[in-house]
Amino acid sequence: MRIVVDAMGSDNHPEPDVVGAVDAAREFGDTLILTGDEKQINAILSQQDTTGLAIQVRHASQAIGMTDKPSDVLKGKPDSSVHVGLKLVRDGEADAFVSMGNTGAILGVAMLRQLGLGRIRGVTRPSIGVIFPIKEKPFLIDNGTNAECKPEYLLQFGIMGSLYVERMRGIKNPRVGLISNGEEEGKGTALIREAMPLLANSGLNYIGSVEPKEFMFGGVDVAVCDGFTGNILMKTAEAIAKYMSNELREQIQSGPITAVGGLLAKPAFARVRKQLDPEEVGGAPLLGVNGPVIIGHGRSSAYAVKQAVGQARQMVENKVVEAITTGLQ
Amino acid sequence: MRIVVDAMGSDNHPEPDVVGAVDAAREFGDTLILTGDEKQINAILSQQDTTGLAIQVRHASQAIGMTDKPSDVLKGKPDSSVHVGLKLVRDGEADAFVSMGNTGAILGVAMLRQLGLGRIRGVTRPSIGVIFPIKEKPFLIDNGTNAECKPEYLLQFGIMGSLYVERMRGIKNPRVGLISNGEEEGKGTALIREAMPLLANSGLNYIGSVEPKEFMFGGVDVAVCDGFTGNILMKTAEAIAKYMSNELREQIQSGPITAVGGLLAKPAFARVRKQLDPEEVGGAPLLGVNGPVIIGHGRSSAYAVKQAVGQARQMVENKVVEAITTGLQ
Repeated sequence: MRIVVDAMGSDNHPEPDVVGAVDAAREFGDTLILTGDEKQINAILSQQDTTGLAIQVRHASQAIGMTDKPSDVLKGKPDSSVHVGLKLVRDGEADAFVSMGNTGAILGVAMLRQLGLGRIRGVTRPSIGVIFPIKEKPFLIDNGTNAECKPEYLLQFGIMGSLYVERMRGIKNPRVGLISNGEEEGKGTALIREAMPLLANSGLNYIGSVEPKEFMFGGVDVAVCDGFTGNILMKTAEAIAKYMSNELREQIQSGPITAVGGLLAKPAFARVRKQLDPEEVGGAPLLGVNGPVIIGHGRSSAYAVKQAVGQARQMVENKVVEAITTGLQ
Repeated sequence: MRIVVDAMGSDNHPEPDVVGAVDAAREFGDTLILTGDEKQINAILSQQDTTGLAIQVRHASQAIGMTDKPSDVLKGKPDSSVHVGLKLVRDGEADAFVSMGNTGAILGVAMLRQLGLGRIRGVTRPSIGVIFPIKEKPFLIDNGTNAECKPEYLLQFGIMGSLYVERMRGIKNPRVGLISNGEEEGKGTALIREAMPLLANSGLNYIGSVEPKEFMFGGVDVAVCDGFTGNILMKTAEAIAKYMSNELREQIQSGPITAVGGLLAKPAFARVRKQLDPEEVGGAPLLGVNGPVIIGHGRSSAYAVKQAVGQARQMVENKVVEAITTGLQ
């Protein structure tokens, strides 16, 4: 398998990106293709032990910054590490693309066949979903890509999410729910009430509206929402998890006995922290384009980059793009 | 001060409601007026020591259930404990109303002058806000009352929320923010982008868009959003807090050393749990009607009822309704 890693993606690029790719080559035995500034990439590579690993470098003379506007870079930076990388996938020279870079820009380039991969036939809006880093691993789609949606988009998110989960987790007919503010009749917004019959008649295993608590506690495999709601849900979960960790630490350290207790219980805390750590997941899949794409956080470490490559290769192995292409016909 | 408590409100009524009112009479020295079934109320009262306390009972022959539709009860249950209680406030026989009952029904009755209190002049949509039970005590408005909003509603929520926080917490010119999915230009939904200039030109201390993390970590005093978003934010926070508590407990109990650590650290956990407990706040204020109203969870304990009465009396003392009446003219 040949996986492209955008070496210019993360906030601290190219180090975490290159080191993560090297670690992935070692762990998975795949060919890793790094796109970006050859000189910078080789400087990092030279510090790594790459004996026996299949690592290639494809020079790209431009890089997209986190604050670059997608509209400016689409045609303004035709030789960026993102453009070069996505073209490798489009042209069959690679199987998947991984980047920790500017989400909007990657989405923009990936959506256009001329520059990147193009949309799968039948997909109006490609969407980034996210595997929530909790025990039951529910899949939330859209996670922020499309802030404003039409009912048909939510239907497509449901179909793509269901196929993704079926292929990636081996769950037959995953339960699909619509995130809402209650399950009673009349709840939800106009968008939700209009999406309901579309999902109910889609042939998906649609279980109706779900509230955040069902989402967190195993009540649904795929949770569908507009990107604004998905973003608020995800960021609220991150913020409250951080808040609780901070408060617990402070309260535990506020007295000698609780501090000793905290030391003894440390491995338990570490396990919960690891479970909730988005770095374990590594990145989020962009669904609806003609190729497997994983996008991670700008602040990702090499570990997260490696995990993201792991996800990308699973998407290839499980033929997620093919399933969506067939499923939306 | 004379405060009405709806004795038929909570899921386990009338016990928590009556006992909470008795505790409030003892703690605050106010007159507490219980509305509801006289016989049931007196049965609970007879088990309490009410010596020297000012507790009155106003019989109401009907009660509103949690599943009753607001449209059915408005005129269909004219002698409910909610109708009777709100009329006491309207007619100047009481200063505030507290209920753990059916939010939609209370809102419906309270909004109509004929049945309850009526809207304050200038208020299109009364709104329930919520004091978030975290350290910085940010105020979130709307918390679910109005799932779909127009930009003008958000402006009114901002004005009411700002006046509430100014009066209740003594913060001069509280910072008002709009909950959004990012602070960059072009983020948010059409609703948010249209509400922005209204808030910016309102004379409020409007600080722009805020993400959930700013909301949780002291970046804003009043966070404005539509009720759908507020509901998702609040319920996600509750769900993830519960999830983390469960996971920590499980991980701590999974081994003997961490279990001992957990025991020693117990007081620290208890302090964090108490801090995050919505029962400490007791209930949420309904703003925009002609009288102080506090609505709490159906599953409230007597303690939560007492805390809700404490909030109601603070609303009276701090003349919140008067401030909103003047502020919206």
